[in-house]
Amino acid sequence: MPLLKFDLVEGRSKEEIQTILDVTHSVVLASFDVPTGDRYQIVTQHKPFEMVMEDTGLGFKRDPAKMISLTVISRERTTAQKEKFYRLLAQQLDELCGITPENLLISFVINNDADWSFGFGKAQFLTGEL
Amino acid sequence: MPLLKFDLVEGRSKEEIQTILDVTHSVVLASFDVPTGDRYQIVTQHKPFEMVMEDTGLGFKRDPAKMISLTVISRERTTAQKEKFYRLLAQQLDELCGITPENLLISFVINNDADWSFGFGKAQFLTGEL
Amino acid sequence: MPLLKFDLVEGRSKEEIQTILDVTHSVVLASFDVPTGDRYQIVTQHKPFEMVMEDTGLGFKRDPAKMISLTVISRERTTAQKEKFYRLLAQQLDELCGITPENLLISFVINNDADWSFGFGKAQFLTGEL
Repeated sequence: MPLLKFDLVEGRSKEEIQTILDVTHSVVLASFDVPTGDRYQIVTQHKPFEMVMEDTGLGFKRDPAKMISLTVISRERTTAQKEKFYRLLAQQLDELCGITPENLLISFVINNDADWSFGFGKAQFLTGEL
Repeated sequence: MPLLKFDLVEGRSKEEIQTILDVTHSVVLASFDVPTGDRYQIVTQHKPFEMVMEDTGLGFKRDPAKMISLTVISRERTTAQKEKFYRLLAQQLDELCGITPENLLISFVINNDADWSFGFGKAQFLTGEL
Repeated sequence: MPLLKFDLVEGRSKEEIQTILDVTHSVVLASFDVPTGDRYQIVTQHKPFEMVMEDTGLGFKRDPAKMISLTVISRERTTAQKEKFYRLLAQQLDELCGITPENLLISFVINNDADWSFGFGKAQFLTGEL
């Protein structure tokens, strides 16, 4: 937790995707108060016509080949933590992956302690293990 | 925002899927108070055995080849807006895409202003840009 | 409702996946107060590098070929119901599908009555049909 679900247009190599995941995890660690091993990432690749991302009228164009939609399922984070995550992720994906900052859509979906089981049939936020 | 995630059984052409997305976006515009460019749509196609949609005991049968599950991640909308969205989408997909209304499952997942970044590392609902 | 979204590493047969879905539905029925036909399941299969699931520092290793991430979109359930679901699902997947309990990540995403339409353009939790 958090669980990060990436939707990408196909065309990147395995290594490019692994770098995106590594960079994003480093931003998770820098933004949220979580252990290093708190890493849950799932990628779904799509054909170009399967992803539409416009601009809500903000006045920019995205590059269909580079677009990323990232949905983060998480317990609540502060607004400051979310803003840091947005800022750092845009910076790092630009610098380290060549994904310019207009190509990034991020949405959080917030849940609670009882909503997670990390294995073994238990809710580790309730048992005291986490 | 909203971000619409479509799950479909494979077998439709690219053009058929694009029509589904266009029709759905016109219903988003008619139902919610959003700009024209507020369009975020992601399609994942599945093999038939990867999608199971029954009827919760309501007493009808779905056509596995036509089933659509649509999850809408959005800031809160009124019940009236959601009901309008359900009604119009079922109507329009039936009339314009041949998807009869028993084949549509819709679920909303609600989040908040701080939960969105549309690009550039910023939370545009908080900065005043949106 | 609930709507269950499974993310799996590819490599299982159709029959193995169908068994996972059948077993999970039996656990839904045993854990939540829902009708038999309340079955909504979507599977997305991934290449191994598209799924990363570590351990949040709990001290175990997962088997990449067997890992399952399951996100359950649902109206609120009690903590006791969620705990029962976690416990039974880990047990049953182990006994009946050979998926040992360290390979299971479960997250709930909670919504409300107005957030569901099961077909026909209606919100069946609001109309009194459900």
